[in-house]
Amino acid sequence: MLVFVLNAGSSSLKYQLINAKTSELKASGLVERIGIDGILKHEVGENKKLTFELPIPTHKEAIELVLRILTNDETKVINSISEIEAIGHRVVHGGEYFKKSVLIDNEVIDKIEELIPLAPLHNPAHVIGIKICRELMPNVPNVATFDTAFHQTMPEENFLYAVPYGDYTEHHLRKYGFHGTSHYYVSNEANKLLNKKNSKVIVCHLGNGSSVCAVKDGKSIATSMGLTPLEGLIMGTRCGDIDAGVIPYLMEKKGLDSHQIINYLNKKSGILGVSGISSDLREVIKASNDGDKRSKIAIEMLCGRIKKYLCSYAGLMQGVDAICFTAGIGENSDLIREKVCEGLDFMGIEIDIDKNKVRTPGIREIHKETSKTKIFVIPTNEELVIAKDTYNLVK
Amino acid sequence: MLVFVLNAGSSSLKYQLINAKTSELKASGLVERIGIDGILKHEVGENKKLTFELPIPTHKEAIELVLRILTNDETKVINSISEIEAIGHRVVHGGEYFKKSVLIDNEVIDKIEELIPLAPLHNPAHVIGIKICRELMPNVPNVATFDTAFHQTMPEENFLYAVPYGDYTEHHLRKYGFHGTSHYYVSNEANKLLNKKNSKVIVCHLGNGSSVCAVKDGKSIATSMGLTPLEGLIMGTRCGDIDAGVIPYLMEKKGLDSHQIINYLNKKSGILGVSGISSDLREVIKASNDGDKRSKIAIEMLCGRIKKYLCSYAGLMQGVDAICFTAGIGENSDLIREKVCEGLDFMGIEIDIDKNKVRTPGIREIHKETSKTKIFVIPTNEELVIAKDTYNLVK
Repeated sequence: MLVFVLNAGSSSLKYQLINAKTSELKASGLVERIGIDGILKHEVGENKKLTFELPIPTHKEAIELVLRILTNDETKVINSISEIEAIGHRVVHGGEYFKKSVLIDNEVIDKIEELIPLAPLHNPAHVIGIKICRELMPNVPNVATFDTAFHQTMPEENFLYAVPYGDYTEHHLRKYGFHGTSHYYVSNEANKLLNKKNSKVIVCHLGNGSSVCAVKDGKSIATSMGLTPLEGLIMGTRCGDIDAGVIPYLMEKKGLDSHQIINYLNKKSGILGVSGISSDLREVIKASNDGDKRSKIAIEMLCGRIKKYLCSYAGLMQGVDAICFTAGIGENSDLIREKVCEGLDFMGIEIDIDKNKVRTPGIREIHKETSKTKIFVIPTNEELVIAKDTYNLVK
Repeated sequence: MLVFVLNAGSSSLKYQLINAKTSELKASGLVERIGIDGILKHEVGENKKLTFELPIPTHKEAIELVLRILTNDETKVINSISEIEAIGHRVVHGGEYFKKSVLIDNEVIDKIEELIPLAPLHNPAHVIGIKICRELMPNVPNVATFDTAFHQTMPEENFLYAVPYGDYTEHHLRKYGFHGTSHYYVSNEANKLLNKKNSKVIVCHLGNGSSVCAVKDGKSIATSMGLTPLEGLIMGTRCGDIDAGVIPYLMEKKGLDSHQIINYLNKKSGILGVSGISSDLREVIKASNDGDKRSKIAIEMLCGRIKKYLCSYAGLMQGVDAICFTAGIGENSDLIREKVCEGLDFMGIEIDIDKNKVRTPGIREIHKETSKTKIFVIPTNEELVIAKDTYNLVK
């Protein structure tokens, strides 16, 4: 079954065409700067990469363009749009409504719209993407896969904040967590390798956005992101955990309102803010190697924060069978993995420095033979989860 | 040397009269509701407890009253005020100026005043207390001991927030930490018991306000409170760690400004907010034992958060020689100590359930003989540290 996987952002669109039964990726791409000018990067297989620059005024034109390219002579991978049998949409926020992927009907769309206050940047774009697909391919079923769904198994003591309880019941104030599809995929791969009944897995999803998740017996029981994706780890431009008392202090010092300060903590902080160099960790590592003091501190802070969550989630689960690193930084930075794991022998976590340095594609083990806890690098694949979920709901 | 130890709050005054050389406590007490009506509770020795209710319009009348009681026929412990040889003041915020206790002169007072934006509730009252003492006892030297001083040894990567670096250099935005005098006293007592050169100690100061501190080789290297005392653990009425994104969300939902929300997170949240019962943990434990669901969750959350810091600081120090529990809850609640330590055998932390239940005054060990990490209950004594520091600076 061919599934068209769509991730619609406010001015962007990521897509993949996947054979959900065989897991084969037929094509993938990214449309950016929708409504500004427009650029589309399309990939077929390993070697065929194409870039188109042309005006793309709305998401509708973007999706039409992608469908045209998928069926066009030169770039075509299917003969007709009618070969697409289902569409899977990535949706950031499913609130407490959605504990797993669902077939989309009007009621589901209403709920995704209702959750816009919790994800003001993401959910509106997802709704647009869904509505256009229903318009352009009226006979094809749509499925929504939620970033928050996997974390809906968290127990109350791990998702509540220590604020008056009514803020949860009336205002839905709680930890939701994000990157759930990735945490699910990676922990599931780890569980296949562990092959034991009661497993304790920690997934470090370290990318542009980053979060850690404690997965017990296949279920998320705690995660570092919260009501919003600002909480937790230090990220490219996000501060992660910070004293809430900082907000009024900075508002006063900088003459900004609370939304502007939150924007500042989301867009100007993190690795970029501390280093002053870049939000791209590769550039910051390079600067640190060249002797830049603030870049060195930024890396120490980043690793310290990951280690903090790693150890606390190990404590929460009373031990850990496997630690998994995934996403851009997790899959590619041996420095970060080494610094996060170093010195944790006392709790049975021993990284193998040499194995950690070897770069091969696919899943690999990087722990010492004596390590009680296994350490894996597992490339994530959220789109495949969406395609499989879509297939299972549609077939 | 007789030292008068003073802790002046906005409408309260705590005091002790201590022989700093022998550590003997001559008298102690608490004045409350200054400027409202006035109540003074005075203690001499174990059995002599007196309560006075009378109008106390300002801190000046409060201190005059205390001095009168200390020298009065019935309650007197000294013949004349002139026997007081030095005064030690507890000061909450010393910013980056004060890395240890100091003799107070005009410049020191100016700096304590300069730091008011960082401790708007506390430093103004401290300045009032200092000025009144200088007025009433002009020939007696005054010393300031700072809650923040002990944490000034934290390395940059542990005190910086992941915000633009200029916010630190220009606006002094950083983690300061509090309860430093207690963390110092307790870790120092633990180090005497450990009697080893390179020690790794974690102090859990669990009282009305609570914080955890990682103490390596006698120096604070990390602590849970931050720019303000709101960050970190869940406390009686404080939420502790929370997604900064919660602030604008709650401002909108509740129609409050950022200062009101911070006040709400400081005064209406924590154990009180979650349980809806009380900020007093004893009442919440009782309610939980009687089957109250939200009280049970509040206790789980409180212990989970302490465990989180405990494990992350153990990771940070690459192991831990001793865990110390102190302050009201830490010294008295075997339930909390047990829940915090349980299930951490995998990292060498084994609490002895029976020893933990025994209530005796003074320092006690509550770990199993097989435990790699020692677990101590150590009653804190911040006033004694202030008296000793005062003595050492004045003698």
